[in-house]
Amino acid sequence: MEARKIFLSEDEMPRQWYNILADIKMNPPLGPDGNPVTPDKLAPVFPMNLIEQEVSTERWIDIPEPVLDILSMWRPSPLVRALSLEKALDTPAKIYFKNESVSPPGSHKPNTAVAQAYYNKEFGIEKITTETGAGQWGSALSFACAQFGIECKVYMVRISFDQKPYRKSMMSVWGGKCVASPSTETKAGRDVLEKDPNTPGSLGIAISEAIEAAVTDETGKTRYSLGSVLNHVMLHQTIVGLEAKKQFEKIGEYPDIIIGCAGGGSNFAGIAFPFVHDKINGKEIEIYPVEPAACPTLTKAPFVYDHGDTAKYTPLLPMYSLGHAFVPPPFHAGGLRYHGMAPTVSQLAVEGIITPKAVTQLDAYKAGMILARSEGIIPAPETNHALACVVDEARKAKEEGREKVILFNWSGHGLLDLMAYDKYFSNELKDFELTEEEMLESEKVFENYPKPELIKSR
Amino acid sequence: MEARKIFLSEDEMPRQWYNILADIKMNPPLGPDGNPVTPDKLAPVFPMNLIEQEVSTERWIDIPEPVLDILSMWRPSPLVRALSLEKALDTPAKIYFKNESVSPPGSHKPNTAVAQAYYNKEFGIEKITTETGAGQWGSALSFACAQFGIECKVYMVRISFDQKPYRKSMMSVWGGKCVASPSTETKAGRDVLEKDPNTPGSLGIAISEAIEAAVTDETGKTRYSLGSVLNHVMLHQTIVGLEAKKQFEKIGEYPDIIIGCAGGGSNFAGIAFPFVHDKINGKEIEIYPVEPAACPTLTKAPFVYDHGDTAKYTPLLPMYSLGHAFVPPPFHAGGLRYHGMAPTVSQLAVEGIITPKAVTQLDAYKAGMILARSEGIIPAPETNHALACVVDEARKAKEEGREKVILFNWSGHGLLDLMAYDKYFSNELKDFELTEEEMLESEKVFENYPKPELIKSR
Repeated sequence: MEARKIFLSEDEMPRQWYNILADIKMNPPLGPDGNPVTPDKLAPVFPMNLIEQEVSTERWIDIPEPVLDILSMWRPSPLVRALSLEKALDTPAKIYFKNESVSPPGSHKPNTAVAQAYYNKEFGIEKITTETGAGQWGSALSFACAQFGIECKVYMVRISFDQKPYRKSMMSVWGGKCVASPSTETKAGRDVLEKDPNTPGSLGIAISEAIEAAVTDETGKTRYSLGSVLNHVMLHQTIVGLEAKKQFEKIGEYPDIIIGCAGGGSNFAGIAFPFVHDKINGKEIEIYPVEPAACPTLTKAPFVYDHGDTAKYTPLLPMYSLGHAFVPPPFHAGGLRYHGMAPTVSQLAVEGIITPKAVTQLDAYKAGMILARSEGIIPAPETNHALACVVDEARKAKEEGREKVILFNWSGHGLLDLMAYDKYFSNELKDFELTEEEMLESEKVFENYPKPELIKSR
Repeated sequence: MEARKIFLSEDEMPRQWYNILADIKMNPPLGPDGNPVTPDKLAPVFPMNLIEQEVSTERWIDIPEPVLDILSMWRPSPLVRALSLEKALDTPAKIYFKNESVSPPGSHKPNTAVAQAYYNKEFGIEKITTETGAGQWGSALSFACAQFGIECKVYMVRISFDQKPYRKSMMSVWGGKCVASPSTETKAGRDVLEKDPNTPGSLGIAISEAIEAAVTDETGKTRYSLGSVLNHVMLHQTIVGLEAKKQFEKIGEYPDIIIGCAGGGSNFAGIAFPFVHDKINGKEIEIYPVEPAACPTLTKAPFVYDHGDTAKYTPLLPMYSLGHAFVPPPFHAGGLRYHGMAPTVSQLAVEGIITPKAVTQLDAYKAGMILARSEGIIPAPETNHALACVVDEARKAKEEGREKVILFNWSGHGLLDLMAYDKYFSNELKDFELTEEEMLESEKVFENYPKPELIKSR
């Protein structure tokens, strides 16, 4: 009987996060005046300790003990050898995954939610506002806030709010308060509703509402939290890849290919960044962020300065972007429906250190079914996108007759997404590709913005 | 930072199940003629290798290697120290749980589903029929059958079929075929529908349908599978308690109190039987099966001979029973809605080796909320019943100022039961208690049946 799972004990958990800003150079975020944003400008939005982390270039940053303690409820997560999948694909490749679905909210999201709740609490904050698409992030932050006794308010994209009642229930279980976005509680929300009372909402609008709710709170004890995109979020997720490296050391292996799905970038960054460090230092590995063909930020959009939200409350971020007003076609993978991409992930793509891939919705669900029937765990729709790439690479390995080692990030389970699987079974899911015209149209918003430099870090 | 999880490696998995029939004496099951049922009578229903296991009195039975291999996808399951719960309850008790929610279907059920699928496959069976209430068992068996390439047909109690569409989706993901019961596919189903076309169905009816579908299949390649009650099912679940014992050895602890919810008995038996062996041999421990006050089999029903199903297809089993036609009030814990109780668990209760408890629905959900907000994992409604007892015992320990060690079985997660939590939040859940009259009425069915002996095993 071959071993399927490589565990670490809690003692072996990484004690520091890896900060990729020590290894790459970046364009700065820009304020409304066109100048780089200074930390004090962000102070009404985030607590200062997180702002310091956002701009830090220290390679290693200590994980606070109380954060490690909460993470140890489910971490270290198992590294799993996907023996049944290998058999199903009849491939010589060795396929491993980090199972991030084992957290209470069921995804990698609490890795940063717990850290952010902790830093807010330390800074004296009593309430956190945030947005959520399909609900993974809103539930992760609700869980984390419950651990530290902080209030949590979630603006949930209306179409998901209506279609995914159980993510709301999850938030309620952990004491989170969730409203549909656009809501009448904010100016940003009211403006959108006035133009289109029946709008399905979007992540960009929900972000605007959550930021507004934080900065306009008169107690001064409320801050905003973002579940992806920002540097400190990527930082907190690196515990995934750092654990994976330790686990591979235990079995004397090292991956040839690393794969993660990429929406805002945090799931991908979590597994990949610690290995990016090795690649920068000479390791020959392939690193693939995988996105939906219907929201092809890294694979088809330009590298520009753009806002992170629809109402343009955020600074201009240097990133691949489809335009801050972009609303993707209705494919089922809420976590991959963002118009932009984390600046750090964008910079790595600009430099050619990582190689973005796009897959269609049907290929993603097809791969998800192969996985569910072999490895048992039902993958989240987001994970399915990584899986489509894994299946591809495993087949290539077979054609080449090479025993490649593939590592991917199992970002979450699909137990609250079974409705989408039902649609797949009844042939109601279809593929979407954006036309050249649609892309040009949505990209008009940043036409007159400053352009980021094409920096080569070394 | 105190350790929260005690892991075993796959190498440390128990290689044998513990058979409680080596330690207790039992009344035999009786056939329609009033005589003990011989193995050959069961041959149309179960494969002979499982029938042999059902009647075996060997204390240790080897777990086949292919079963261990599939179980190792998620086993050994972690033993978790519930530090956050202890803090929330401010108790000196040390609380541990076996987290059985980590399996792909999300409960302890696949421990026996995998074993049963394996033995059926070994015996040349190509299709398995079964019933399911809330869907945990149907999905577990679908998962297991997918692993061995066997067809799986599930008769799902109609009210759950309508109210819990996602359990059906889960079965579909793993290739299981699910119909609402009563169905028109069987005589048992048609008979019920004729009397009451709008019946919500019951577990007893669904069992009848699944058995009928198996024994009337003309290929001879179909058998029936039951997810609880029978001796071999309890046997397969003992891996839970055997792992727990090894895990406690690692940390030099031993539980004073063992708690599991009990519907048909398999979740309770899994955690408890290996410790029952120690208790029989002199260990001073308390062992509590916990059932709903609205379906109080062990706590209020008599110990009798009764059928396991409504249509009286099964032999007469010596057990506590509310009567085979009993339909419990509509409380939300599908896995605890069975009219009877495993004969082995019943025998232990008769002998006073275990001490049954009953809790109300509201106390159960209240305890579930304490757990969800402290330990993070959202418990299945069934687990909530065990939790209510855990909370009670932890409070008692506080009153007595004693550092008791409590172990309970976290039978499954509640991610597909969030609808019931919503009802709890909106005060739609209520308590039900059966009246003396209702009980007497439902118990009329076994008035003229033979009576089991009150055996003392030693």
